[in-house]
Amino acid sequence: MLYLVGLGLADERDITVKGLEVVKRAERVYLEAYTSILHVGKDKLESLYERPVIVADREMVESSSDEILEGADKADIAFLVVGDPFGATTHTDLVLRAQELSIPVKSIPNASILNAIGATGLQLYNFGQTVSMVFFTENWKPASFYDRIRENASIGLHTLMLLDIKVKEQSLENMARGRKTYEPPRYMTVMQCAQQMLEIEEEKKVHVYAEDSLAIGCARVGADDQQFACGTLKELCNIDLGAPLHSLVLLGKRAHELEKDYIKKFAVNEETFEESWKKYHGRNQ
Amino acid sequence: MLYLVGLGLADERDITVKGLEVVKRAERVYLEAYTSILHVGKDKLESLYERPVIVADREMVESSSDEILEGADKADIAFLVVGDPFGATTHTDLVLRAQELSIPVKSIPNASILNAIGATGLQLYNFGQTVSMVFFTENWKPASFYDRIRENASIGLHTLMLLDIKVKEQSLENMARGRKTYEPPRYMTVMQCAQQMLEIEEEKKVHVYAEDSLAIGCARVGADDQQFACGTLKELCNIDLGAPLHSLVLLGKRAHELEKDYIKKFAVNEETFEESWKKYHGRNQ
Repeated sequence: MLYLVGLGLADERDITVKGLEVVKRAERVYLEAYTSILHVGKDKLESLYERPVIVADREMVESSSDEILEGADKADIAFLVVGDPFGATTHTDLVLRAQELSIPVKSIPNASILNAIGATGLQLYNFGQTVSMVFFTENWKPASFYDRIRENASIGLHTLMLLDIKVKEQSLENMARGRKTYEPPRYMTVMQCAQQMLEIEEEKKVHVYAEDSLAIGCARVGADDQQFACGTLKELCNIDLGAPLHSLVLLGKRAHELEKDYIKKFAVNEETFEESWKKYHGRNQ
Repeated sequence: MLYLVGLGLADERDITVKGLEVVKRAERVYLEAYTSILHVGKDKLESLYERPVIVADREMVESSSDEILEGADKADIAFLVVGDPFGATTHTDLVLRAQELSIPVKSIPNASILNAIGATGLQLYNFGQTVSMVFFTENWKPASFYDRIRENASIGLHTLMLLDIKVKEQSLENMARGRKTYEPPRYMTVMQCAQQMLEIEEEKKVHVYAEDSLAIGCARVGADDQQFACGTLKELCNIDLGAPLHSLVLLGKRAHELEKDYIKKFAVNEETFEESWKKYHGRNQ
């Protein structure tokens, strides 16, 4: 059996009792370590599990899935995923390969950012589709996120933006030369996300949002030191929310007074918060 | 400290290691038992926790919150919620009351239906706002769900529908007479949901969906015996998916071929599945 085990969001103790049982009895334990991260190192996991954990990078999962699945027809293999196995990335290729090999697959659910974002006080019912934001480069500024936000905004909904993670990436030069040298990991910040959003609005000018649109910058959601900052996109362009992971919620115009009561305590600046609320959200109440 | 502890979706072992630690050391442990249910009884929880659990019904949470919070300024009180504390219902009133009393509040996240629904094979990125469906009565058929689905459909997104639960409800007669006699619990089925959806479409005639629109009926998501049935709404009007809880996903037209590959194995009828897919979804690929 291949078990996809959700680890939750913060540390080693966010695994479920059921997930821990699977990990303890599995033949081998892999940790998927390129689409998200916990706030603790592999050593903490190994210490709770009382056994070694094999870190699986993108290359291993994409090119050596048969190695991961070896023996899974007879024994249990645990594949650990930060958050929920279905959260932001589904490991469809691994699952499909397992099915080809007639290996049964089971998932152990856990919290994901998609529901933990409720800690902002925003109602999960008021969110539209979730959107990804990738790091822009000088020549590559994918703006499809803008259309997705426009769609959500057109029906008044909030948009949760999940921010890019670059782990074990090669520079173009190293890739060209076949050198297995990797760049240091990079995690997009709320600040970078807000800047990229305004850059694309400036370019497209469809007024999907503006410098004074309200958003909530979120850091380390689900951890003890989670942090929220509610401000205008312009304010969030200059905010430092500390260590990763970050995400951002752009408020939809249908935001409710009850949500306001909850999020105003995260306001970066009460005055601009009230102004923007009144301008964009106050009219539907 | 007031701890809102997510229990996950299926049984007592879906609690996280962190959540279990909180429960074991808390002064009192309450189980919120009216917005969702686990598939095991209170005895299973008590046996894992090695301590008693107090069942908190709606009346207790809404009218006696100070009783729940008593002593939480000095000791830890655990308030257990099926799924994630922020999942479908936020216990905002209890949290706000705790804050008024200067009692700190912490949440222990867990899986919710909002991410576990990914087990259908549908991409969580392709879901719009989540919608609730309540039991119709002869004179009360709230149809706001129809407008929400219309909004999601207008941008091609899937809609997750959470189905009504009636626990410890009084009949009008018993309520009028002040008798604390309760009706047996009722959990809406996929069948009832599909019927109510078609009833409202028939009435409104805006063609948000039709008898041959594809949907996935979902039962006991997250449990070992979870079950999915993909069919037209008309087919789902006659499907028995067994014990609760049920939910339903109406497919958005932007559904992708990769999603099709995954969900077709749940097809009630391969022929009608292919026909409806071609009619409503095949054109965008």
